[in-house]
Amino acid sequence: MRPKIYLFGDSITEESFGVGGWGSSLAHQFSRTVDVVLRGYSGYNTRWALKVLERIFPATAGGGEDAPLAVTVFFGANDACLADRCSAFEHVPLDEYKQNLRAIVSFFKKRWPKTQIILITPPPIDEESRLQYPYIENPNGLPERTNEAAGNYAKACIHVAGECGLPVIDIWTKMQELSDWKKSYLRDGLHLTEAGNRLVFELVVETLREGGLSLETLPVDLPLIAEIDPQNPLKSFEN
Amino acid sequence: MRPKIYLFGDSITEESFGVGGWGSSLAHQFSRTVDVVLRGYSGYNTRWALKVLERIFPATAGGGEDAPLAVTVFFGANDACLADRCSAFEHVPLDEYKQNLRAIVSFFKKRWPKTQIILITPPPIDEESRLQYPYIENPNGLPERTNEAAGNYAKACIHVAGECGLPVIDIWTKMQELSDWKKSYLRDGLHLTEAGNRLVFELVVETLREGGLSLETLPVDLPLIAEIDPQNPLKSFEN
Repeated sequence: MRPKIYLFGDSITEESFGVGGWGSSLAHQFSRTVDVVLRGYSGYNTRWALKVLERIFPATAGGGEDAPLAVTVFFGANDACLADRCSAFEHVPLDEYKQNLRAIVSFFKKRWPKTQIILITPPPIDEESRLQYPYIENPNGLPERTNEAAGNYAKACIHVAGECGLPVIDIWTKMQELSDWKKSYLRDGLHLTEAGNRLVFELVVETLREGGLSLETLPVDLPLIAEIDPQNPLKSFEN
Repeated sequence: MRPKIYLFGDSITEESFGVGGWGSSLAHQFSRTVDVVLRGYSGYNTRWALKVLERIFPATAGGGEDAPLAVTVFFGANDACLADRCSAFEHVPLDEYKQNLRAIVSFFKKRWPKTQIILITPPPIDEESRLQYPYIENPNGLPERTNEAAGNYAKACIHVAGECGLPVIDIWTKMQELSDWKKSYLRDGLHLTEAGNRLVFELVVETLREGGLSLETLPVDLPLIAEIDPQNPLKSFEN
């Protein structure tokens, strides 16, 4: 059986198999080594994620035999919706966000003690674009998310990762290192362009590698064509 | 547990999670309903596929409980390599190709009686591009694949599908309906461009739909954001 990597998160995960998406790029990178399994839920925050964790990742008879190699946990963009703006129903207070992240991490650590858990912060927010591309009716004309709030959730995510001894990908900071980050990396002020997807993909690959998971270390599923002897191909398929 | 669709084939399947690939497009289309699982093996023909079928799809204790909704079987491009040219070691005679396809279908029908099996023919070949983009040393200067040979394998695939009562996607014919098929659909005379990938994706979606599998019929994994009551979001997550 081929090992798995789960991608668990909100819409930035759910849409990661679109053209040039970071999820499909991972599946492509590991096309002969790992099954990259999508568990993205648009609009979800950590409060809702926690409610459905057992249903998404049910305990199996195998008792950990089916443990994935890694899982990315990529929430916070919805938690960080402001409490007094149009998407308030998705808002989760900062302290609860931290608590929920800790609980999600505990769940995975308990279920799969050897699985590499990677936290990813929410991305930065381009507030102007958020007004230009509303997801729902926004009568008061103020963005439902701000970059400052997203930054606070990103810092909280980094803090929890530190507490739990986990790697974290701080895309809130990484993206803003590029002066044109608002247009280069973000499509609508929140979701990723192809370049944004590329950046997340590269950072996930780098983090997996630091945790010992890379094309150099993972066993390949069946002989590669370059390893098959043209004089005697069937030799490669003997057990 | 979310149901699966397996993509089983050669390099045109293995690389289907590249940018705009037909595999990633399927995973994107079914992002909340189905796990699209990649089982593509570059360079493989039906003879080798048959040798490793049991290893790729091992019998599980579940006894068919883990049956996928569908499996695409997409071989023939390598079988159709000519027996007297540089990639001869991948060649499989036409009659054996048919026999191997029948055996692969029988295997799946026996293991998973309710699974939708979709055969896909090899694509057409642009011989000029095959000389321009050689995969291995080609000292005699003749293309290792011809469009005529690929067409014979496509017809054989359609024949086997008919015998077995299975749907078949005849991309050999479909692609050639476009006058500019050589450049529009093929990158190197064999593998697919983004437009070629798009065509295969659309034909697979159409075939799945004819077999009863579509976004309209498949159950969604957890409530969609549009179905969640903003006044009482947690109500959606009660069991």
